[in-house]
This record gives sequence, C-alpha cells and structure tokens, in this order.
Amino acid sequence: MLIVADENIPLLESFFTDIGEIRRVAGRHMTADDVRDADVLLVRSVTPVGPELLEGSRVRFVGTATIGTDHVDVGWLKEQGIGFSAAPGCNANSVVEYVLSVLSLHAERCGLADGNELSVGIVGVGNVGGCLAGRLQRLGFKVRLCDPPRAEAEGPEGPEFTSLEEALKCDVISLHTPLTREGSHPTYHMLDESRLSLLGSNQLLINSGRGEVIDNQALKARLSQANAPSVALDVWENEPGIDPELVGSVWLATPHIAGYSLEGKVRGTEMIYQALSHYLGLPVRKKAGQYLPEPPLSKLTFTATADEQKALRTALRVCYDPRTDDVKLRLAMRGSADERAEAFDALRRDYPVRRECSSLKVQLKGAGRSMQDSFKAVGFKLKI
Amino acid sequence: MLIVADENIPLLESFFTDIGEIRRVAGRHMTADDVRDADVLLVRSVTPVGPELLEGSRVRFVGTATIGTDHVDVGWLKEQGIGFSAAPGCNANSVVEYVLSVLSLHAERCGLADGNELSVGIVGVGNVGGCLAGRLQRLGFKVRLCDPPRAEAEGPEGPEFTSLEEALKCDVISLHTPLTREGSHPTYHMLDESRLSLLGSNQLLINSGRGEVIDNQALKARLSQANAPSVALDVWENEPGIDPELVGSVWLATPHIAGYSLEGKVRGTEMIYQALSHYLGLPVRKKAGQYLPEPPLSKLTFTATADEQKALRTALRVCYDPRTDDVKLRLAMRGSADERAEAFDALRRDYPVRRECSSLKVQLKGAGRSMQDSFKAVGFKLKI
Ligand SMILES: NC(=O)c1ccc[n+]([C@@H]2O[C@H](COP(=O)([O-])OP(=O)(O)OC[C@H]3O[C@@H](n4cnc5c(N)ncnc54)[C@H](O)[C@@H]3O)[C@@H](O)[C@H]2O)c1
Ligand SMILES: NC(=O)c1ccc[n+]([C@@H]2O[C@H](COP(=O)([O-])OP(=O)(O)OC[C@H]3O[C@@H](n4cnc5c(N)ncnc54)[C@H](O)[C@@H]3O)[C@@H](O)[C@H]2O)c1
Repeated sequence: MLIVADENIPLLESFFTDIGEIRRVAGRHMTADDVRDADVLLVRSVTPVGPELLEGSRVRFVGTATIGTDHVDVGWLKEQGIGFSAAPGCNANSVVEYVLSVLSLHAERCGLADGNELSVGIVGVGNVGGCLAGRLQRLGFKVRLCDPPRAEAEGPEGPEFTSLEEALKCDVISLHTPLTREGSHPTYHMLDESRLSLLGSNQLLINSGRGEVIDNQALKARLSQANAPSVALDVWENEPGIDPELVGSVWLATPHIAGYSLEGKVRGTEMIYQALSHYLGLPVRKKAGQYLPEPPLSKLTFTATADEQKALRTALRVCYDPRTDDVKLRLAMRGSADERAEAFDALRRDYPVRRECSSLKVQLKGAGRSMQDSFKAVGFKLKI
Repeated sequence: MLIVADENIPLLESFFTDIGEIRRVAGRHMTADDVRDADVLLVRSVTPVGPELLEGSRVRFVGTATIGTDHVDVGWLKEQGIGFSAAPGCNANSVVEYVLSVLSLHAERCGLADGNELSVGIVGVGNVGGCLAGRLQRLGFKVRLCDPPRAEAEGPEGPEFTSLEEALKCDVISLHTPLTREGSHPTYHMLDESRLSLLGSNQLLINSGRGEVIDNQALKARLSQANAPSVALDVWENEPGIDPELVGSVWLATPHIAGYSLEGKVRGTEMIYQALSHYLGLPVRKKAGQYLPEPPLSKLTFTATADEQKALRTALRVCYDPRTDDVKLRLAMRGSADERAEAFDALRRDYPVRRECSSLKVQLKGAGRSMQDSFKAVGFKLKI
C-alpha cells in the first residue's frame, strides 16, 4: 500500500510505517502525478483536495491532519466512495492553554490575586470552547456559554446557554466560533461597531477563533475611543496581510498560533492514523504520547512556601507565555505591506516547538488538595 | 547588653540573640527615650541618627542595614567615638539580577536569539556596577565601564574606563551612580536634554541608581520625539510623587525595588552583625544562608533538548520578571497625586518576597560546558 503524504505532517514514519510505504511530497505543490499510484493521501491545509488532484488515481482514503476541511471537496469524496477523515479538536487543548495564559496575564494586570474571580463568556462552545469551559469551571471561574446553534439543537437537554448580549457583560469574552456568512447565526462581523460599543475598559476581549468574526476596522476605531476594552487577538481579518495599526492598538497580538503546540500537531497525525486504521480494519496500536520528544523543561519543584495562584501563574508561563509571540509579531509589523505579510507567514511556518502543560512534571512539596487540584485542572502532571 | 533595633530588620533574633537582649521598635517613630539605655542601635533608612536621638544615651555602636548613610550623622558619631557600620553592596546582586532580567526581555523584544550580542555601557562602577560588569563579562557581553572618579583615582592601575559620551554609544546604558551635586563629576541631571538627544531607538537606557541622575522632564520630552530610546526606570525624580506621564511613556517602570530581594535584605542584617561582632571582638559564627527560608520555587530541570539562551531566559524570569512589578506600578498611577504617592510607597513597603537566582537549583541534563557556565555565571546553583 502506498501512502502519499505532506512531508510536513509530524511523525509520519512513526505512525504509518507499519501500514504502508510512505512517499513524502511538498504539500503546497502536490500534483495529480504525485498521487496517481497512491492508495492513501494524507494532507494539511495547504493542499486542495478534489477531482483535479484525485481523478484517475487509486486513492481510497484521504486524511487531513487539520481541524478545518475547507481545502477538501468533502462532497465529491463521498460521491466517489473515498474514505475521509479530519482531526477535529486536535489542537483544542493548545488554544485553551493560550487562553489560560492570557487570563493569568490579564488578572495580574488588573491587580487580581486570584484570576478565577473573573467571569468568562465563551462564545462558540464546540471543541475549543467546550474544552475551555470545562477547564475554567474546574478552576473556579464563573463561566457563561453562548452558542445559539447548540442551544437550538440541544434545547433543554443541553447545558444552560446565554445570549451574545449576556456573554458580552462578562469580565472576559473569549471567541471560539467558526467563520460563517450564511444561516441563522452567521459569525461574520458578529462583533461589529454596536456590539463593540457595549464593552468597557474593565473587560477583556479575546479572539482565537476566526479573524473576521470581529469587524477589525470597527475594533480599531473602538480602541481609539475612551473606556476601550483590553483586546488579545490571535486571529485577524485578511491574514497574512493584517492591519499593523490594529496590532499596535491591541494589548496582546499573536500570529494565529494559539493552536500550535507540538502536542496539538502530533494529535492531528494520531487522529488520522486512528481513522485510517479503522477504515482498514487494523488495530490501533500507537499513541501520540510514545513519540513525543523530551521537552526542554521537564520539571518544576514548588515547596510548601509557594502560593497557589502565583505558582500556577509561574508554571503556566514557563510552558507558554504569549508575550514572547506578541513581541515577535510587533517586530514583524515594521516593513512594507508585502514584507509584513511574508513575516506573518514566516512566524507561523517557522514556529518554535511549543509544549503543552502536560509535558511538565510539577512537584508540589507539602501542597494541599486545592493546590494539587488546580495544577491538575490546568493539565500539569503532578509528582507528589 | 541591650540592642535596640528597627522591628523591620529581617532576622534580628536569628543574628543578634546571642549578643544581647533585643528591643524591637518602630523605625519611623524611634525616640531618644527608646534608645537611652541601649548599648547598640540598629536602624534602617527611616530613622535619622544623630545627636537628637543619641545624646545622653549609652549607645556605643550604630549599625544601619542599608547601603545608604544619608540618614546617619556619621561625622558626629565619629566625634563621639561611637562605632558605626553600614551594609554597602548588600543588595548589589539583587540589582544585577534586575538588570539581567531587563536585558533578557530587551533582547527578546529586539528579536535577538542571543542577548549577549549587546554592548552594555555601565555608568558608575561601584558595588552594583562592578558586580554587573563581572557578571556580563562572564556571560559574553561587550562591556564598557564609565566611572570618572575611579578613573582618576586608579589611573593606569585600574581597569579601562571610557567617557560618558562613549558609554552612551552602547546598545544598552545602565546607570549605577549615586546622586551628587558637588565635586568634579556631579551626577545630578547628568543625563540632560543634550545627552538624551544622543540616544536612538535601537538603544535601551536603564536607571536603577538614583532618579535625579536623569532629568525626568527632559526624558519625557525625548520619549515623545521620533527615534526615542527604550527606557527602563526603577528610580525616579521626586519619589514617591513620581510623574505618572513618565511612567506611561517608559517601556518598563518599577517602584525602586531593584534591590529588594530577600537575600539582599538578609545580607544587610548579616553585614551589620559581622561589623558588630568585630567591634565587640566576638567570633562571626552565623551566616545569612542558614536562615533563609525555603524558596517557593526550589528546582527547575532542563533536558538535553533545551536551548541555552531560551533556558537561561526561562530560569531568570521565573526568579524575577520585572513586568510583574511594572504592571503594579502602572495600576498604582491611576488615582490623585496623593493616592499615587501613597501607592508608590505601599508597593515598596508591602513588596512580596523575592528570591535571588541562587535560591533555585537548576538541573541541566546532558548540557554542555557552555550552558553550565552560563547558568553558573548568572548565579544559579547547578545540580548536574
Ligand atoms: N487560533 C488558532 O490557532 C485556532 C486553533 C484551533 C481552532 N481555531 C478556530 O476556532 C474556531 C472553533 O474551533 P472548534 O474546533 O471549537 O470548532 P467547532 O466547530 O468544534 O465549534 C464551533 C462552535 O461554534 C458554534 N457557533 C457557530 N455559530 C455561532 C454563533 N453565531 N454564535 C455562537 N456560537 C456559534 C457552533 O455551534 C460550535 O459549537 C474555528 O473557527 C477554528 O478555526 C483557531
Ligand atoms: N534601585 C535600587 O533598588 C538600588 C539598590 C542598590 C543601590 N542603588 C543605588 O545605586 C547607586 C550605586 O550603588 P552602589 O552601591 O554601587 O554605590 P557605590 O558607591 O559602590 O558606587 C557608585 C560608583 O559611581 C561612581 N560615580 C560617581 N560619580 C560618577 C559619575 N559622575 N559618573 C560615573 N560614575 C560615577 C563612583 O565612583 C562609584 O564607583 C546608588 O545611588 C544606590 O543608591 C539602587
């Protein structure tokens, strides 16, 4: 069996070598010739997959190691009877850790000893938003959920949902919706001038969903007015040609990397490996954990004199501190429009290895139950 | 023997209990009555010491657990034959760690992988500046020393000194002079409008010496012009009533706490304990190290996959990240002039326990000699 795969999918060999022969191809330049004799095609978001690429090939299964499927003509694959699988939610935990670290910085900036005094409105409660909600609830935050499509679909069986207007009253609003322009709840410019005017200077707006969910020009105008909210943007309108003035006026600016942990990327490979194994009726023997390299920082030891909230902040930030990405994006906004767009892409392409909290063993000497629970809730591995 | 002491001197009992009976007094309100029957007086900078306090008392020795002696009438003590000792340099290492952490943040902001590519001009090469110079040289920075009084006193025997104008050409300029208004090298407003105009946007100016060494109004004006340097201020003109607009326009703003590590404070006590022991002809049996409490964070483990510079930055910042003090000072600048001054003082008075790098055991698994040397140079305790 021949597996043609984007060479940038991490751990290809580790996962797929037992299943078939692997041919590595540059994802951006994949041609029909490359895949003609393949049985399985594994791609990332840079490879458009449809009749142009696959007609006349032997491909029976397509996997994309990404959460999005915009690059795949899913309907056509179905018509052809070609198996298909994506990796929904593979990087949800990475985004959640980005949000937790942003929240810890925000709490510090507001002079709050305990970050979990904040109320958080989560808009879009899917893979990412749902994971975030669970984490925050365990950590003692007041959480409000806003997801009209889910509210309608799940009715009284589902969790308690609130309106967008109610969510916008929380101390922190975190957006996790896809970009949609149709349907009864389109998200395109969902945060427009009038909704942005509802936010005040004690609030924080985080967007790590899709850039176009906020009207970026309206946001820029809002940020130049009195009583403006704090804003942390990981996603932008018109990426990679984003607005440098908006970068200059938000509090935290990162280049669409909230989901870029190594664990998230490897989980993407693991998910299409699992799907392919099921498709082929093979046992699922491999797990991402066994292939993850040793992290640069492997262990932190806190003693009985440690304060719970301070220790949590320290541990979160040594794993991921968004300010490191923020300074890089600001530096990247110096050149011409072309240079800026190129620099934005380069920051994503050459993103340094980032590890999730689960990669760090934390030893809590003499810590009470509450402190242990908090560390576990964030996702650290405890060594007592 | 009766020892009257400022109650805020740390570890009083631990160090002095074997020498005499200790009477603790509030330093700000110490009166002649409090000290009349004392043999030894131990103070901090909040207690003016001179004839008003001591005339008619039995005090034979005065110790101040501070580097400064402005609050002590040293000449009068000498006339009276009263022994005296201060604690010069006790917090030099704390200030050096502040500067190292500022440098690491600056290097990151400039997109430098290796901070030690920077040249650093050290103005004032005494206890703090000298300690900083040694540390930076070991870490591979290009260092230039500017200290006209020392240059004159030491001549060709001393190290190579440069002029202030040369020092101002370095990538980073760090000020460590006292405040002097007289003599051939007065430091009052040494960085005035014309010298500030020499600095450009690729440079960083750090002041953790004395606020009045920079003309703060000229600095504010310079920062509103094009091509302004980055500025990190720990000391300010007119403390505690500092200029909130200047706080708003510098990159890093901290409330005169560069020297506020616990180790620095305890070393102050240790130094006057040593001086008193010598004065009394007693053996010096106690060392600060034996009384320091366990630090909240006691150990970090890096693996062979760690990058030297990134690991160093991580370790430095978990020990001390000036941004935490910076956000607090900015928050404190919100109220009226009186409230701001009170808040500035409160930040210093209620400063949280900060530990130096020497409190942290760092394990470097599989690290090479260079990485070990860098960690040792910063002051971490290595556990190989
Ligand atoms: N920044 C990053 O690096 C990064 C990483 C992962 C995902 N994302 C983005 O985050 C978004 C969410 O990802 P996901 O995996 O959770 O998607 P998902 O499909 O699992 O969840 C999206 C949720 O949004 C809800 N939703 C749709 N329209 C809504 C509306 N008008 N108001 C409120 N909720 C609405 C849906 O009902 C769904 O529950 C996606 O756009 C994805 O591209 C970004
Ligand atoms: N920010 C803080 O928390 C903190 C902590 C410790 C010390 N300090 C301050 O830092 C300064 C230095 O402290 P130190 O203990 O190193 O003092 P020090 O007396 O040991 O050294 C000061 C040096 O400055 C030199 N100097 C004097 N005039 C000069 C001039 N015009 N140009 C260049 N050099 C000149 C002196 O020759 C001397 O070598 C002091 O003002 C002290 O108050 C601040």
